[in-house]
Amino acid sequence: MRLEKLIGERFKEKPADCVIDSHALMVKGGYIKYMSNGIYSSYMPLKRITRKIEQIIREEMDNIDGQEVQFPVVMPAALWDESGRYEGIGDELLRFTDRNNTKMVLGMTHEEAAVHMVREYAQSYNKYPFMIYQFQTKFRDEARPRAGLIRVREFTMKDAYSFHTNQEDLEQYYDRCFKAYKRIFERTGIPEVVSVASDSGMMGGSISHEFMLLTSAGEDSIAICQECDFRANMEAAEFISNIKNNSESSLLEKIFTPNIHTIEDICEFLGDKTCNSCKAVVYQKNSDDSYVVVFIRGDLDINETKLVNFLGEQIHPAVITDESGLNAGYIGPIGLHINNKAIVLYDKSLENRNNLSCGANEEEYHYKGLDMSRDVPHAQFHDFAKIQEGGICPHCQKKAIHISRGIEVGNIFQLGDKYTKSMNMKYADKNGEQQTPIMGCYGIGIGRLAASVCEAHHDEYGPIWPKAIAPWHIHICAVRADDEEIKLFADKLYNKLQEENIEVIYDDRHVSAGVMFADADLLGVPLRVIVSPRNMKQGIVELVSRDKTLNKQVKLDEAFDSIIKSLDQI
Amino acid sequence: MRLEKLIGERFKEKPADCVIDSHALMVKGGYIKYMSNGIYSSYMPLKRITRKIEQIIREEMDNIDGQEVQFPVVMPAALWDESGRYEGIGDELLRFTDRNNTKMVLGMTHEEAAVHMVREYAQSYNKYPFMIYQFQTKFRDEARPRAGLIRVREFTMKDAYSFHTNQEDLEQYYDRCFKAYKRIFERTGIPEVVSVASDSGMMGGSISHEFMLLTSAGEDSIAICQECDFRANMEAAEFISNIKNNSESSLLEKIFTPNIHTIEDICEFLGDKTCNSCKAVVYQKNSDDSYVVVFIRGDLDINETKLVNFLGEQIHPAVITDESGLNAGYIGPIGLHINNKAIVLYDKSLENRNNLSCGANEEEYHYKGLDMSRDVPHAQFHDFAKIQEGGICPHCQKKAIHISRGIEVGNIFQLGDKYTKSMNMKYADKNGEQQTPIMGCYGIGIGRLAASVCEAHHDEYGPIWPKAIAPWHIHICAVRADDEEIKLFADKLYNKLQEENIEVIYDDRHVSAGVMFADADLLGVPLRVIVSPRNMKQGIVELVSRDKTLNKQVKLDEAFDSIIKSLDQI
Repeated sequence: MRLEKLIGERFKEKPADCVIDSHALMVKGGYIKYMSNGIYSSYMPLKRITRKIEQIIREEMDNIDGQEVQFPVVMPAALWDESGRYEGIGDELLRFTDRNNTKMVLGMTHEEAAVHMVREYAQSYNKYPFMIYQFQTKFRDEARPRAGLIRVREFTMKDAYSFHTNQEDLEQYYDRCFKAYKRIFERTGIPEVVSVASDSGMMGGSISHEFMLLTSAGEDSIAICQECDFRANMEAAEFISNIKNNSESSLLEKIFTPNIHTIEDICEFLGDKTCNSCKAVVYQKNSDDSYVVVFIRGDLDINETKLVNFLGEQIHPAVITDESGLNAGYIGPIGLHINNKAIVLYDKSLENRNNLSCGANEEEYHYKGLDMSRDVPHAQFHDFAKIQEGGICPHCQKKAIHISRGIEVGNIFQLGDKYTKSMNMKYADKNGEQQTPIMGCYGIGIGRLAASVCEAHHDEYGPIWPKAIAPWHIHICAVRADDEEIKLFADKLYNKLQEENIEVIYDDRHVSAGVMFADADLLGVPLRVIVSPRNMKQGIVELVSRDKTLNKQVKLDEAFDSIIKSLDQI
Repeated sequence: MRLEKLIGERFKEKPADCVIDSHALMVKGGYIKYMSNGIYSSYMPLKRITRKIEQIIREEMDNIDGQEVQFPVVMPAALWDESGRYEGIGDELLRFTDRNNTKMVLGMTHEEAAVHMVREYAQSYNKYPFMIYQFQTKFRDEARPRAGLIRVREFTMKDAYSFHTNQEDLEQYYDRCFKAYKRIFERTGIPEVVSVASDSGMMGGSISHEFMLLTSAGEDSIAICQECDFRANMEAAEFISNIKNNSESSLLEKIFTPNIHTIEDICEFLGDKTCNSCKAVVYQKNSDDSYVVVFIRGDLDINETKLVNFLGEQIHPAVITDESGLNAGYIGPIGLHINNKAIVLYDKSLENRNNLSCGANEEEYHYKGLDMSRDVPHAQFHDFAKIQEGGICPHCQKKAIHISRGIEVGNIFQLGDKYTKSMNMKYADKNGEQQTPIMGCYGIGIGRLAASVCEAHHDEYGPIWPKAIAPWHIHICAVRADDEEIKLFADKLYNKLQEENIEVIYDDRHVSAGVMFADADLLGVPLRVIVSPRNMKQGIVELVSRDKTLNKQVKLDEAFDSIIKSLDQI
């Protein structure tokens, strides 16, 4: 490929609205073209990268007995009705009607399609286990697309679905896939990706892992223990409280607290710490606006994802009306009365606590001396609190939690029977009894993976693509290609490399060395070969690796062999 | 791959609702799974076939300097507004709004996206010419999907777009692409595909060709001259009339024709042939229901696509109301009066004709002796008539037109400046003047191509896949794999072939030879290797090609070498 003919714009200036480096570099380097919010076209260099990534993933999926198939992008809503997700998922599921007024959706994931594909086929135990996977365009109508290819609305995903007759078999396969994922990230050049325990969210099921590239540019937060191997995303990391009970419970006492509306103010008023208070956080369900009141230790925050997953439905911060029966600013667990339907929940941080302050559900009054066991005897406690930097590890119990940022580059889920049951997939076991199979699912976003590699491997001038996924392997810069000798030598080298099926991009434009090298930096090709008048005079060419670890001069007549050798070493 | 593990249902019965063989065989053979009207999932065998087809196409596109890129499936309506197609295309363009109420479309073709990708890049003449292409999912909301993968709503397409500064350059490139298409059809196993001149329809532009697999199962009609090389689709084939004028024009005479409403009746009444009459065919525009009256020779039919293309908008058969001013059954060119907006058109078959009968625009009256030049002096004549079997070739003028059926497997268009002009794409020429570039576009539907190969190469038992796109190359049938000796030998052969990277599918199920061979027929793999007790006893294995041209017995210890050799010969 001659660079002169390569379509795409490359420029020096940092593009506007790019919050992370990989986004800026992919715009500057002519990899992506913005079309609409969260929607991009890809130029040739990115397409070459993503095709190589896909081939690596394909090999690893085939290696764990996956069968490549394809599901449609556009699916009938009726299929998503079967699993309950047509109603269950929010606005990120794009819904529309076709010309016959049939309700359709754009696939954002394909569990329903996978079950649809195999439920007639896999009606006997001896067909199991099996795994099917695809590479397909997905659309997810994100509210806030951001960071270039990291969070888009349209993307290509490798999604895989495995089917099993029992949990042990699922777990064995899950482990094989886990290892395949590790190999995929190693082969694509980001072996530093870590797995973290995660929450299954809308996917259903129980055990799941996310694969995270730890980087400050990431949009996800992860709790990592610095003493043991505990790693989990925020909603999967249990908050552990280290506050013990006061030895003796005081009496419950209602006190007059005029003009005091926040938990901080009441604690200050009482000369106590906020961790010795019980605050109320109020939400409403999206479905019917009924109230959800969560009591939690005064110094903690709710992790809303934990709450959503507990409830199994979406919520939003409450608007507390006069008709609700709630006394905003004075809500507490004793004497709480809510008009109409409502749910009251208690965070584990309050379990067994005593001598707490809290609202009295009465204008201008609070309680002090609250004893949860004594005063709220029927409360059940669940984990809703957000884990914090320096917090206690739920695994080794040491105070060693560090909150890191990361990009999720893959995920794997043990789905259980969520889809097979709701969609009525059955098989006959050895005894001829009808059973419900269970599933696992396994995803990797291709564009996001490419962007993550760029995020992990770049300098201020451009990406440093690992050889396995680089758009080309050799980048020839013929500085002063208007010089006949230069041009002749560079042309010969280019042709020879092409004949040997080496992936080479050739820059013989009549531009300055500065422009040439800047463009080469943006294309991030592993090995650069510089043919220039100065080098020619010395009878050499320069070989420089993009990551600067290699920089050598080789004789003209040894150039080809030396390039091949250097490429092998990279 | 062990056949036992291959996902998909294969069965004997002919599936319902399959009008063509490729559809029935792809359903029976476990290639496709119906999900919704015109929407299918693909199982592994088809996915392997389409990936091979894509790779062949990719090589040929790269070979004519194409750059592989990718455009989105979901695009903003605003982009399609720029070209005018957001309004211009009918219901087959799927329109919807996203969560922010932004109007979007599902890409059924990507001219707008191609211009969007390059219009900032290609602002100087020295960037030209270039071609970009992609493989991408498309959605086209067909009113009547049919014939399996032949006419679907969702499909994968290779679409390519070339950009040029002048017509000569476009034509040269068009010719290169034409040849690449011929190679693609040869390499995928259907060299019998012919090119036919076509009409550009909604794509705009002038010169275009369709590539047709001629088969009675096709849904398109093609006019082919049996005397010269003229081939065109119906709307691109000009109707040539061979009726000469009568020597002398009679007087125009109004005659009383009670209860005569059709052109056949009036001709019978006058004792004349229908070809000596001028009939009216009336349509209404979809946009505003205004009337379009077309006069044509009484024995001919209108090709509605010709008419739509002439008008540049959609039409439907007219409902003639009392208020219209039209006298249904008596419409003629003389004294025609239509209330409100209307268009009156004349087919070329009437040009210079005389002594015709026609309606008199008056209840129960017709004219005879109509002379077009004398009585309708301002009429302009265009080609709207449908070409007929046995008709005159517009190229060699011989009466040798044959109407064939075919499947369109590809098309190429010279688009001219339709998109670049409307979307305001410009470049500076050598003199610094702003110019509008011109485009070509080039499409191949991947699934339809696979189905067409099946249509061209199958027997009653299944597809006969050409080696270049077959899902596997070798199909081992181990008949009676419960016999230890059989199993041992077949396993060894399977492993050895796999080690040598031969694509092999291995059937060691405990099923009858009949079931085994039926499944092998449905999978259509080029070379079958039969290991069976009877063969073993004779110390041989059988090699049989799917197309029956090869059938030989080889010694056990020569089996591997012989398989490799036979495969090379296929």
